[in-house]
Amino acid sequence: MRSKSPQLVIVGSIGIDTIETPHARREEILGGSVSYACMAASFFTRPGMVGVVGTDFPAEYRTAWKKAGIDLAGLQTEQGRTFRWSGVYEQNMDSRSTLSTELNVFENFSPEIPDSYRAAPYLLLANIAPELQLHVLDQMTAPEFILLDTMDLWINSARPKLLEVIARCTMLTVNESEARLLADTNSLLTAAQRLLKLGPHYVLIKKGSAGSMLVSDNGIFLLHAFPPEMVKDPTGAGDTFAGGLMGALAEAGKIDEKSIRQAMAYGSVIAAFGVEEFSQQRLEEINRRQIDQRMDLFKSMVAL
Amino acid sequence: MRSKSPQLVIVGSIGIDTIETPHARREEILGGSVSYACMAASFFTRPGMVGVVGTDFPAEYRTAWKKAGIDLAGLQTEQGRTFRWSGVYEQNMDSRSTLSTELNVFENFSPEIPDSYRAAPYLLLANIAPELQLHVLDQMTAPEFILLDTMDLWINSARPKLLEVIARCTMLTVNESEARLLADTNSLLTAAQRLLKLGPHYVLIKKGSAGSMLVSDNGIFLLHAFPPEMVKDPTGAGDTFAGGLMGALAEAGKIDEKSIRQAMAYGSVIAAFGVEEFSQQRLEEINRRQIDQRMDLFKSMVAL
Repeated sequence: MRSKSPQLVIVGSIGIDTIETPHARREEILGGSVSYACMAASFFTRPGMVGVVGTDFPAEYRTAWKKAGIDLAGLQTEQGRTFRWSGVYEQNMDSRSTLSTELNVFENFSPEIPDSYRAAPYLLLANIAPELQLHVLDQMTAPEFILLDTMDLWINSARPKLLEVIARCTMLTVNESEARLLADTNSLLTAAQRLLKLGPHYVLIKKGSAGSMLVSDNGIFLLHAFPPEMVKDPTGAGDTFAGGLMGALAEAGKIDEKSIRQAMAYGSVIAAFGVEEFSQQRLEEINRRQIDQRMDLFKSMVAL
Repeated sequence: MRSKSPQLVIVGSIGIDTIETPHARREEILGGSVSYACMAASFFTRPGMVGVVGTDFPAEYRTAWKKAGIDLAGLQTEQGRTFRWSGVYEQNMDSRSTLSTELNVFENFSPEIPDSYRAAPYLLLANIAPELQLHVLDQMTAPEFILLDTMDLWINSARPKLLEVIARCTMLTVNESEARLLADTNSLLTAAQRLLKLGPHYVLIKKGSAGSMLVSDNGIFLLHAFPPEMVKDPTGAGDTFAGGLMGALAEAGKIDEKSIRQAMAYGSVIAAFGVEEFSQQRLEEINRRQIDQRMDLFKSMVAL
């Protein structure tokens, strides 16, 4: 069986995390934006992963990715240790502190896109340096829908490059404080309008456990987050949301308001599954039928 | 013209506030839960107000209430100064600190329900001492839908009395941290399920600018908050939401899942108007047509 070229390419970080919540502590578990996003997207499409790991990277994680149907042609293995991150969550899980960061092989990461990925119409640029995001864009031949994630670090330290990427993306996703910082206003609606003027067709403002707001020329879409049964580990929820969104969009094969709203809802449902366990444990357990069941429930939960 | 007995009775505080936000400071403006809630409810029904003011209470506020069609038979005027509250909001308007509180005539407030109010089917018990809420309940002859608001102060200092009121209400409304405190769990869904067991048919968890979640035997309803154009003064948003909700329910004249969802959406729309100006200025300017326009917009904004 010849494996098809991926329709969706996802570029970001791969890490090994040590996480402490009020209830438990887990050492050396799989993390990173591209790991979460690819797992979430894999329920809808065969995503192509672009990232870097060190020679110490556990074989079992690679096996889990293959089992989930993730294309690993863009996964680079470099001599040295994999990126490490360690963080601790406060009681309510809404805020966290970083205890340590070791860039390791991620420090010299240059995302190289395999030939088999270059014509993919869907591209998710998870949060990495804007310069690297631009390097990815330059290698893609016909991207139709580019979702761009970023963070306050790049807004403060690399604004000109970031503005270049923003001008070339289809949908920019930022959280509330990043939106205010980037647009220099306290009003979220004003911020979204200003960000639209920078080039993207859609601005998606993430509000964590509260949900998200999509602003475009079509108007505003408000999505309350799907409520998880419990929250054991919120790490990667935003990346899971973004990956689910892009996977569902790639599966739908069309880019219209209704498809985007549905895709966001899928992203929220999968993110709610994800936080119910540490790392990607829950994402490895669930199947498409369970996701669709929650999706039906979600629709009934927001019906007005 | 004989004025009809009110279908909705609202009991709570009336205050004169001094408020500082990052952008402005306003002294001696109208505040208090029952003020906000009655103004919001007045777009749908003629609410009966129960509260207390001092002899210093400005006549202009009374005039504004009459103009809005609020029944003032339950408004007590006592010798002395009106309740005063002063607070300051942080940059993002999500949190505030109390600078001073003067109970004044509110200290000895005993809510007496006029004969013309006693048969009202809808009752909103805004946040006051549980003992006073019980005293109100004892005076009502046939309440069909009782919305109960409370706060962490009473959960910590008057739990037994509070549990008595909760057992007698139809819908309990608390914010996220109050829900966790009252139910002694970090999971919001678990908290809501535990609170349902205390007696109410509905538990409404308020998440401020993020929206709200209604939990009952009918399932879960998730409502993203209507996004205000700008936020000048968030004071009273929760009371405006509750008042709008109860007003819309009283107007609908029936208590089913669909009516409650619609009523919550109305509450959110009116609350979003309310925060666009200090005190009740915006609520005095708007009309039902503007509310219904935003309601239509709201439906399109949450359609999945």
